[in-house]
Amino acid sequence: MGKGRLEAFSDGVLAIIITIMVLELKVPHGADFAVLTPLWPVFFSYLLSFVYIGIYWNNHHHLLHACKRVSASVLWANLHLLFWLSLLPFATGWVGENHFAALPCALYGVVLLCSAIAYWLLQQAIMHTDGAQSIVRKAIGKDWKGKLSPLLYLLAIGVSHWQSLVAMALYIVVALMWVVPDRRIEQALHEKND
Amino acid sequence: MGKGRLEAFSDGVLAIIITIMVLELKVPHGADFAVLTPLWPVFFSYLLSFVYIGIYWNNHHHLLHACKRVSASVLWANLHLLFWLSLLPFATGWVGENHFAALPCALYGVVLLCSAIAYWLLQQAIMHTDGAQSIVRKAIGKDWKGKLSPLLYLLAIGVSHWQSLVAMALYIVVALMWVVPDRRIEQALHEKND
Amino acid sequence: MGKGRLEAFSDGVLAIIITIMVLELKVPHGADFAVLTPLWPVFFSYLLSFVYIGIYWNNHHHLLHACKRVSASVLWANLHLLFWLSLLPFATGWVGENHFAALPCALYGVVLLCSAIAYWLLQQAIMHTDGAQSIVRKAIGKDWKGKLSPLLYLLAIGVSHWQSLVAMALYIVVALMWVVPDRRIEQALHEKND
Amino acid sequence: MGKGRLEAFSDGVLAIIITIMVLELKVPHGADFAVLTPLWPVFFSYLLSFVYIGIYWNNHHHLLHACKRVSASVLWANLHLLFWLSLLPFATGWVGENHFAALPCALYGVVLLCSAIAYWLLQQAIMHTDGAQSIVRKAIGKDWKGKLSPLLYLLAIGVSHWQSLVAMALYIVVALMWVVPDRRIEQALHEKND
Repeated sequence: MGKGRLEAFSDGVLAIIITIMVLELKVPHGADFAVLTPLWPVFFSYLLSFVYIGIYWNNHHHLLHACKRVSASVLWANLHLLFWLSLLPFATGWVGENHFAALPCALYGVVLLCSAIAYWLLQQAIMHTDGAQSIVRKAIGKDWKGKLSPLLYLLAIGVSHWQSLVAMALYIVVALMWVVPDRRIEQALHEKND
Repeated sequence: MGKGRLEAFSDGVLAIIITIMVLELKVPHGADFAVLTPLWPVFFSYLLSFVYIGIYWNNHHHLLHACKRVSASVLWANLHLLFWLSLLPFATGWVGENHFAALPCALYGVVLLCSAIAYWLLQQAIMHTDGAQSIVRKAIGKDWKGKLSPLLYLLAIGVSHWQSLVAMALYIVVALMWVVPDRRIEQALHEKND
Repeated sequence: MGKGRLEAFSDGVLAIIITIMVLELKVPHGADFAVLTPLWPVFFSYLLSFVYIGIYWNNHHHLLHACKRVSASVLWANLHLLFWLSLLPFATGWVGENHFAALPCALYGVVLLCSAIAYWLLQQAIMHTDGAQSIVRKAIGKDWKGKLSPLLYLLAIGVSHWQSLVAMALYIVVALMWVVPDRRIEQALHEKND
Repeated sequence: MGKGRLEAFSDGVLAIIITIMVLELKVPHGADFAVLTPLWPVFFSYLLSFVYIGIYWNNHHHLLHACKRVSASVLWANLHLLFWLSLLPFATGWVGENHFAALPCALYGVVLLCSAIAYWLLQQAIMHTDGAQSIVRKAIGKDWKGKLSPLLYLLAIGVSHWQSLVAMALYIVVALMWVVPDRRIEQALHEKND
């Protein structure tokens, strides 16, 4: 009941988030290379956030595919996730405009951390709603990526005050770790179909 | 006939409304805590409006699920609701930028009041179109939340000129009251399936 | 083949057009009634354009419902319509900001006129693709509204240089004329089902 | 599995890209013809980019129609394409604001070139995933348009430093070449159905 519309609404919000971030890449005055140079940190942080939203869309897609029932707690857990992700354009713009300064890098990590927690809560809500038969429950397994990511975000937030570029490197590491989609769920779905 | 496209269009508009509100959180110049401080009222009003749009999406989702036929009056009642909700980003930005001053708080309540009336009109249009067999009609019952909310908005609008923070508190109370989705309709749908 | 995706894409574009227009209602500095006064022409032109996009969404919805096959010419005729409608936010903002001055009012009419022509071309493309069996062909009939509207837009464009408020009144008259959805097509679909 | 949601997400992103480009057409101050004159290069570059996004939506629509399975590589190849297309509003605004100056025209070509490469990669990913039975593989054939376009973009990028209007003319030529949708795939689908 209503899973289609939950997916459609989430797709809409994620599509808008991923696209309005590019508005932070403001069209510069002037038409030479010199005006492009200050834009590269904005471009880079846009690229990183684009990949992060892509990862969330991808995993969200798999997670909801494995979800059987949509309850009120699933609906609100999903909105909660979208809320934190909707703050990523702000954090992205702040990081880019300040060329990876300490505080913006830390805030970027806070938004990623809260999004990761919100994703974990959404998983819990789905598992609770689907009960003992939950495909998600079987698929998640040890969920080492889901457990390692928040720790790396915390590390990056702590490190950002001294070496903000190290924090950015950590965010890149976590992104690379996740670019591979959640094969565990794909696996569990395959097994079920056999 | 056409319910799917009505839902898709509404989802699109609500997804955009909920996301463009974050553009009011303008990326500040400077990279220290001091530049973040003036943003907290904008952040808070964004959070409150995000919850309100979430509530409307949620209830709209249940309402249309229980709607059987889409007539011209349902289409226009739906657009009327979207019109008032589309003014929420403006009201949100004005409240946030003026740190909960009297007039912006009152206007925020006016937008919420008109949205509530538009939602009530949409319910009426659906009940009228579906006739005596309307699931919505059976589900609504006494609709005490639908009747209490406009009164609380009116109270908040009146109070805002003296104590605008009390008005904001009233808006939060109404939001909390609605965060629970419309179980009456869920209930009626369940009974019908039994 | 592909009608669903054509509808989804059109819904997306129309939903974004209807929502970004509200961004022209810029959050004013200051929190008293005086800062709201200069906004009323922007608000009014937003309301009028919202109704126009609502009308186009509504009629587009009926038109595609009655369309049986999607050809390349239908796809491009549809994009052509979306192009002109995408200029409505610009025309709306210009009319509102200049308090219904002559040239902005004329341009607003030009955008409406081109949109009407594009809609007519889309109808032709669908009728041509569906051939002699076209439901749209039977439904359109004399299409007096489709023929009268461009004439009224032309009249309004001509009049706007002397009396721009008369031009706005004409745009309102055309909108009211169309708010009733295209019952002819609804009628033809009903007859087919009987 | 999941093709519907991949299409819906892509439609959402493309619908937003095509619509936010119009925001570069900034509402001018003043209400006479003189304030419209500097806008024409912005308007023209908007029109060209609108056509390009229309072409990509159209071909994407055909390509995914012929795609049978969605794998992780298809998902990421699709996001990669959307990334480059999301930079088109920036390139469009820069070209328009600088009245077709050399560097913006070259950058516009770079974005088009990278999008073309990304589209080619998406085709490869789909063919690889669908294997020997791939409809896309049979439909593509020699793909002379797909091979010629990048060469013309490269030529335009090289030429732009001397004659940027020639570069723009080349972009228009490529667009016209593609406005006809990918009949090869339509053909292959028809043959399969016979």
